[in-house]
Amino acid sequence: MNLQYALELAGTFVFAISGALAVQDREHDLFGAGFTGFITAIGGGSLRDILLGAYPLVWIGNVNFLYAIFAGIVTTFLFFRFVAKLRRTLFFFDTLGIGFFTILGVEKALGLGFRPEIAAIMGMFSAVMGGVIRDTLTNEIPILFRKEIYASACLAGAVVYLALNHWGMERDYNLLLSISIIITIRLLAVKYKLSLPGLGQHPKRNG
Amino acid sequence: MNLQYALELAGTFVFAISGALAVQDREHDLFGAGFTGFITAIGGGSLRDILLGAYPLVWIGNVNFLYAIFAGIVTTFLFFRFVAKLRRTLFFFDTLGIGFFTILGVEKALGLGFRPEIAAIMGMFSAVMGGVIRDTLTNEIPILFRKEIYASACLAGAVVYLALNHWGMERDYNLLLSISIIITIRLLAVKYKLSLPGLGQHPKRNG
Amino acid sequence: MNLQYALELAGTFVFAISGALAVQDREHDLFGAGFTGFITAIGGGSLRDILLGAYPLVWIGNVNFLYAIFAGIVTTFLFFRFVAKLRRTLFFFDTLGIGFFTILGVEKALGLGFRPEIAAIMGMFSAVMGGVIRDTLTNEIPILFRKEIYASACLAGAVVYLALNHWGMERDYNLLLSISIIITIRLLAVKYKLSLPGLGQHPKRNG
Repeated sequence: MNLQYALELAGTFVFAISGALAVQDREHDLFGAGFTGFITAIGGGSLRDILLGAYPLVWIGNVNFLYAIFAGIVTTFLFFRFVAKLRRTLFFFDTLGIGFFTILGVEKALGLGFRPEIAAIMGMFSAVMGGVIRDTLTNEIPILFRKEIYASACLAGAVVYLALNHWGMERDYNLLLSISIIITIRLLAVKYKLSLPGLGQHPKRNG
Repeated sequence: MNLQYALELAGTFVFAISGALAVQDREHDLFGAGFTGFITAIGGGSLRDILLGAYPLVWIGNVNFLYAIFAGIVTTFLFFRFVAKLRRTLFFFDTLGIGFFTILGVEKALGLGFRPEIAAIMGMFSAVMGGVIRDTLTNEIPILFRKEIYASACLAGAVVYLALNHWGMERDYNLLLSISIIITIRLLAVKYKLSLPGLGQHPKRNG
Repeated sequence: MNLQYALELAGTFVFAISGALAVQDREHDLFGAGFTGFITAIGGGSLRDILLGAYPLVWIGNVNFLYAIFAGIVTTFLFFRFVAKLRRTLFFFDTLGIGFFTILGVEKALGLGFRPEIAAIMGMFSAVMGGVIRDTLTNEIPILFRKEIYASACLAGAVVYLALNHWGMERDYNLLLSISIIITIRLLAVKYKLSLPGLGQHPKRNG
């Protein structure tokens, strides 16, 4: 459990950095960048817990998450030039975080007694809604609608976890497997520019 | 009550279709369209219940609403060309749904012991906020601000329901009457392009 | 306490006016302007209370806040030309309101037993998130990201209040002092066009 807690804090730290970096090209000041990092890091889990009525929200009940976010924002400020060069590394850790938070969200909803269908949606929301809120606030079409096979990778991993859980697979193996599925789908989709078709279109490859 | 429940599921189905269709012209994939249908269908009722603290949210407590949404999304995907041609029919059912969910929202808030002023706002929110959230996510000026006499029709119907309820009209008649008022105002407004005036303007007809 | 309650209602009235005025230049009808005034006035406090799970929300539990909002909207409609000329006066009262609601938000969170770190964030959210939601709905980059030293002034005042509270300063003096700090920072920032630097930039003066 200590490993899981450390990973949660680390994932929150990475989400805060990627959120703060998201506004570097626009007319945002440091405060706006920090605020965006904060929203990105807490948005998904907060929305999940508000929808489920699961109080207190994680970062409100445990102030260490707030410190992880603060550390991420300060790191971005102090080492901006260095961090901005690490985009590929950050993308990789961001993808790890998305997979990890999806399955944690599924487990939280299941643990509170909600049905698997609800748990799958809550897992996906945990991972992607922080970014959706960030993009909405900064007036962009949310990444979820632009970069295909992003939220859908999370949903696929959540469904796999729920199925294997239902069939009795041990939790640790299931966690590793379903997170790996999310990460693999996401990395393959980005590498090969895979995308789902739109309404009234045939499947295509971008570019 | 069974008729009401069936109508609620049917209204949710229609809202999901109209939400999914809303993104057909943009760079959305199937997942984005489904996600938008989902948000449109659950947004208004979820916001109402979160504001009231009425847990569990309807679709989280009763998974049949999730299935109604899923059916609406799959229907849109499979029969896209057919559904897209039914715009007038869909608009009619959407208008029915807006009237119906307004009054159900009013009744829910009243039933939980909230004041009529709050119930009127919650009724309007139930009907229109799904569309507002949808438009905000897809980076449009919400329909509520563009298409006049839309949310205001819901508010008018809610006030009529509350007044007649206060004066003792039987529930079934009141339901039918106040829903009809919402639908009539909305259809007349669209047919004759009626609109409310803006700030510092005189009343006008559009176009 | 009666003075504080009167100030809360007055602040809500002013926020509703500034919200309704915010949409005068666009294609909004009276209803859209009223809706925007409503959202601006309730948004920050509602978000704070939803995040904290502090039910009922202020305006839902006490209908007088609804009447204060309604009065602000009607005032804007009836005396639009007059009110629109009062921009400087409104800006001043809006700034007063932001300072006041920041510290009230801090006190509410503290009173509910939350940690100071959470209370500081909740104070800032109370004051600024109504405007952020308003700007997001009307498809603008939120003022928080554009006009520097706005939310950060609130955060600074909240931290000062918490520090002085921790060191035992009497509540009334602390309230006046920390609100004055927020107002002073905000007014100086606007007068001298002060701003925080952006990521990878040096501190600068705008314009």
